[in-house]
Parts: sequence; C-alpha cells; structure tokens
Amino acid sequence: MTIQEQLQQKINNKTKPVGALGLLEELALKIGAVQHSLSPRISHPHIVVFAGDHGIAATGKVNPYPQAVTAQMVLNFVNGGAAINVFTKQHNIGLTVVDAGVNVDFDPSLPIVHAKIKHGTADYSAFNAMGLDEVNTAIEKGKSIVQKLFDDGCNTIGFGEMGIGNTSSASLIMHHLLNLPLSACVGRGTGTNDEQLQRKLDTLAEVSSLHDLHRTDITPHQLLCRIGGFEIAMMTGAYLKAAELNMLIVVDGFISTAALLVAQQYNSNISSNCVFAHCSDENGHRKMLEHFNAKPVLQLGMRLGEGTGAALAVPVLQSAVAFLNEMANFESAGVSGKA
Amino acid sequence: MTIQEQLQQKINNKTKPVGALGLLEELALKIGAVQHSLSPRISHPHIVVFAGDHGIAATGKVNPYPQAVTAQMVLNFVNGGAAINVFTKQHNIGLTVVDAGVNVDFDPSLPIVHAKIKHGTADYSAFNAMGLDEVNTAIEKGKSIVQKLFDDGCNTIGFGEMGIGNTSSASLIMHHLLNLPLSACVGRGTGTNDEQLQRKLDTLAEVSSLHDLHRTDITPHQLLCRIGGFEIAMMTGAYLKAAELNMLIVVDGFISTAALLVAQQYNSNISSNCVFAHCSDENGHRKMLEHFNAKPVLQLGMRLGEGTGAALAVPVLQSAVAFLNEMANFESAGVSGKA
Repeated sequence: MTIQEQLQQKINNKTKPVGALGLLEELALKIGAVQHSLSPRISHPHIVVFAGDHGIAATGKVNPYPQAVTAQMVLNFVNGGAAINVFTKQHNIGLTVVDAGVNVDFDPSLPIVHAKIKHGTADYSAFNAMGLDEVNTAIEKGKSIVQKLFDDGCNTIGFGEMGIGNTSSASLIMHHLLNLPLSACVGRGTGTNDEQLQRKLDTLAEVSSLHDLHRTDITPHQLLCRIGGFEIAMMTGAYLKAAELNMLIVVDGFISTAALLVAQQYNSNISSNCVFAHCSDENGHRKMLEHFNAKPVLQLGMRLGEGTGAALAVPVLQSAVAFLNEMANFESAGVSGKA
Repeated sequence: MTIQEQLQQKINNKTKPVGALGLLEELALKIGAVQHSLSPRISHPHIVVFAGDHGIAATGKVNPYPQAVTAQMVLNFVNGGAAINVFTKQHNIGLTVVDAGVNVDFDPSLPIVHAKIKHGTADYSAFNAMGLDEVNTAIEKGKSIVQKLFDDGCNTIGFGEMGIGNTSSASLIMHHLLNLPLSACVGRGTGTNDEQLQRKLDTLAEVSSLHDLHRTDITPHQLLCRIGGFEIAMMTGAYLKAAELNMLIVVDGFISTAALLVAQQYNSNISSNCVFAHCSDENGHRKMLEHFNAKPVLQLGMRLGEGTGAALAVPVLQSAVAFLNEMANFESAGVSGKA
C-alpha cells in the first residue's frame, strides 16, 4: 500500500463515520503524505514576516496608506502590538520579522533579521524594480532564513509580509503568470475607494505595458526584477528552501500566494508541500487558489496579510494531526461499524 | 454611544485596515455586545455532550449504525478516544458527557452526568417519543447542568450530542419549525447510501403524517413529545439556561441547531447569545443557518456531531477576543492612518 492508502485506512478506522471530519481528514492525509508518516507531527511551527518597501508606493497612485507605514508596522511587530503578534502568541507559533528592504534604517539592535537589500524597490512605473543581482541576493537570503529555522527544529512554516503597495506587485505577478486580465487580479488592498481603485488599475495597466507582461518568455528572475518586491523575492527563496527541506508550508493570503506562483516557476511541484490557510477577501485570491486546486482551511473574509491567515490555520492543522494520532479506532474502542 | 458603537470604534482603531480581520471583527463585536464589555473574556469554555437513544433507531429504518453505538461512544468519550476528546484537550476546553437517555445501564461510577430519563425514546413511527412530564424533566435537567458550569466560572458553552438516529429527529423538527419539505431537511446522517436515504425519507414522511407535523398549533413541548429525543430536549433546556445566564453560546452542527430552533420557540431572542461554529456537511444545516442569519465561523465540511465543530471554533473566538484586547491602536503604535 502507498502511504496515502495507509493513511486513508487509518483515518477510516477512527471512531467516526467515514469522511465525517471533512477537510480535517484531507489535511491529515496531506500532512502524513508530506512527512511520509502515519503519525505526523507539527514541530515548532513558525511564521516569517518579510517587510519591504515599494517605489511605486511613494507615488501614492496605488495605495491609500503612506509608505512610512511599512516601517511603523515593523516597529509594531517588534513591540508585539500587531495582529500577527497576537495570533502567534495565542497559538505558540514562532515569529521572525525580516527587513527585506524597508525604506528606513532600523536600529541594528532591533530583534529582527536585518536583511535589507535596499531602501525599497525602484518605482516600476518608470524603472525596473530591482537588479538581477538583487533578485539573487533576496532569494538566497530567504533560503538561509528558512534553513536556520529548520535547523532549530521547525517543520511547519508560513510566510507573511508587510509592504505598503505590495498588493500591486502581487496583482502584476498574478496577471502575468496566470494570464488573466488585470481587472481579475487587482483589488482594494488595504482599502482603496472606487476612485483610487480605478487609478490603481490604470496605473498597473501602464506598468504591465511598460514591462511587456503579456510576453510569455519572461523568466521568473526577470519578472521579479521588473515588478517584484524585495519581500516577495525573499519569500520566493523561502518557499523554495522550505520545499527542498520537505517542510509543511502554510500558505497565507494574496501576496504570499503570488510569491508561491513565482516559486512554482522554479519548482513546479512546490504545492505538494503546501496547505492553503485561508481564502482572502482580496479580489483575485480565490482565482489563485483555484490555480493550485486548493481548498482553503479558513474562509473568514480576512485581508490583512502579515501571515495572519496562516497563524489562524495552524490550530486546525494541529487538530488534523491530533485526531490522526490520538483518536481511538473502532476495534480498540469496541464500537460497532455500519450494519 | 451604544456598546456596539464603542466596540466598533475600538476595532477600527486597531493597527490594521478597517474591516481587514473580516469575520473576526464581527465576532469581537458580538462577544463584546453579549458581555456588554469593551474587553470581553472567554472564561472556562466548555462543551456538554448529551447522549440519548431513539426508539426509531431500533427499527433500522433511518440509520446505518446499530443503536448500540450510542452507548459504545459514551464509553469512548469516557476513555478519551473520540474526536471531541481530542479537540477539547487540544484547546483546553472542559468536557461534560451526559447520559440523557441511553439504552443501557452505565456503571454509576462512570465520570458522566447520570441524567437518564429512560432507556431511549419510544419509536415515534408508532407512538409519541416521550411524555410531557419527560420533556419537562429533560429541560429542567439541561438547565441545572448549565447552571452548575456557570457557577464554576464558565461563560462560554457549546452543546454536542450522540444518539444513533438523531438526525431524523432533527430533520423532523426543522421540517415542522421552518415549514420546509422533508427533502430539504433530511440528509445522510452518519452515512446512509442512496437506498437507505430514500427509506429514511419515506419513513419520516409517514412519521410527519402520523404526528400532524403540518399543523402550526403544535407547542414546542408537544413537538418534543411527539418526535424529540431526550438529548435534544435536555439540550433545549441547556440553551435556555445559558441564554438566561447571558453566556456566549457556541452552536455546533445539524442536531444542535435543531435543538436551538426548539429553544427559540421558548425564547425568541436566544440567537443574540449565539455564535455559529460551523456549517455542517449534513443536508439542511445551511438552511437552518440562514434562518438565524448566521455566518458560520468554520466551513470544514464536517458532519460528526459530538460538539466537534463548536470545539474547533473556540480558538477562533479566542482570536477575536485577543485582537480586541491585545492589539495596539494607531496612536499608541505610532502608525499613520490612510491618506
């Protein structure tokens, strides 16, 4: 029997009607298959939040909040005041905050990973967002961060982000890689009104045209170079290393899933290591999930980023593992089966 | 300002875009409103599982599992081997198992609440399920169980059930109280096949006719008397006491929501104390949720009962309370608002 068949048999022998735990059963099967184990474990779950600034955000054409909020939120993470702090603390999930390219100089003593590529990307409405060497550096840095967490015992990891303007970068990635019209990929982000949304759409249409995003011969490196973000490039590397190390990857929302789309260009099998934490309320996320044939664990209408969806999904993954490991089976419990 | 307005203001001042935590924000508002507090707490959350047997189940016309499974599962609960044991242990939720009317004599030393009304209801395909005095006793017993938990510090409670055949009773309740055709109310329960489902439908159509369930002048007491179950009647009393004590009620799946429909006949305002844990995969549950204008916390395709949906929703409720109490606001965190 394959490991999947063995897991299914174990699940079906638990004291419950076949299939009655729904998605929990699929998650148990998936996690067991990833770990190639009938008794999988979620060890030291961890969320890494990558923060980076976007040159386009300084123009104000795509975002209602000022660029300065990225750095302010990094300090909020450090002080424990953000949503991701609350949820990781609640569920005993580790949290690492990474300066991937925020537009301020942080005090070196701040308890974050100082991995700044630059003080924000260039404005991709006029230039390439970053150089190819910067893409390489970001990907390698993302990989090394994950390697270290793995070495410390983590086998389950989720990636969040903070970066004013980064839904725009994610929308452009989706537009290019899923070959969908921008209108299907662009949403309100952190809360644009109708007029701002139209301006965002118009701006991104110009960006798409400037960078020839309709072309199919763009490499993922070139794509990041043209319209990426440092936090997205670094997250791409983090995904690749997590898959290479056969970790369980808990995919967060819109921007994190866009980074996964990029990572999939480098590793076409990457989603076999992934569970999808939630369906974001950001326009476009549902279509990304469909691309991955994903059944999201949660559907809470959230659109915050930071890895908050991933953090809230971790206890459900733990429930899936727990029922598989701890529930009695029909024989051991002396419970009769169906007539 | 009303408490709702004050809560909304507090929520909107948290360091996140307005509305970005989706349903968590609605839950925080609801829980704060129930507790009339800007800093609500979930104290000693508890699940009570009511177990009872159904005379109809002995006929085998509505259920694929033998009636004996009800008692076997009670022992499984006591031994910690059922799904509800795993999930309540994971989330540090208290668990009380109640013999409301199981068709065996349990050892009096078993750590359950011994509240047996009778060894199962009468077969309602021929008789009334129970007498009016038994309805009264069951409701009063349900109330006293909740009162005791409240006295011990519990302010958040969910009700689960175990009873082979009890989806049939729940379907009949729904059919009568929501005035819907049986086909919209009857599902596969613990896993009937197509032929068994048709037999279940035919049987329940006869039952509905026998007990005049089309009539609108049936009191809730009479309804329980005709086609109820001891676990459902006891749960009805439990709901009523929980609302009277202004506890937060976490509504589980199909059968628990049917019992809430009955409780609503006694207290039309009862849903103001309720959050709805999940949307069960059992046919009909979605329509019940629509009746209550409910947005279920989870949508995991579960259909197990036992209070498992309620148990899995508790950490999400705790997340809602935690963000409300622990997140920084824009001013305290020095984060800029929208342009």
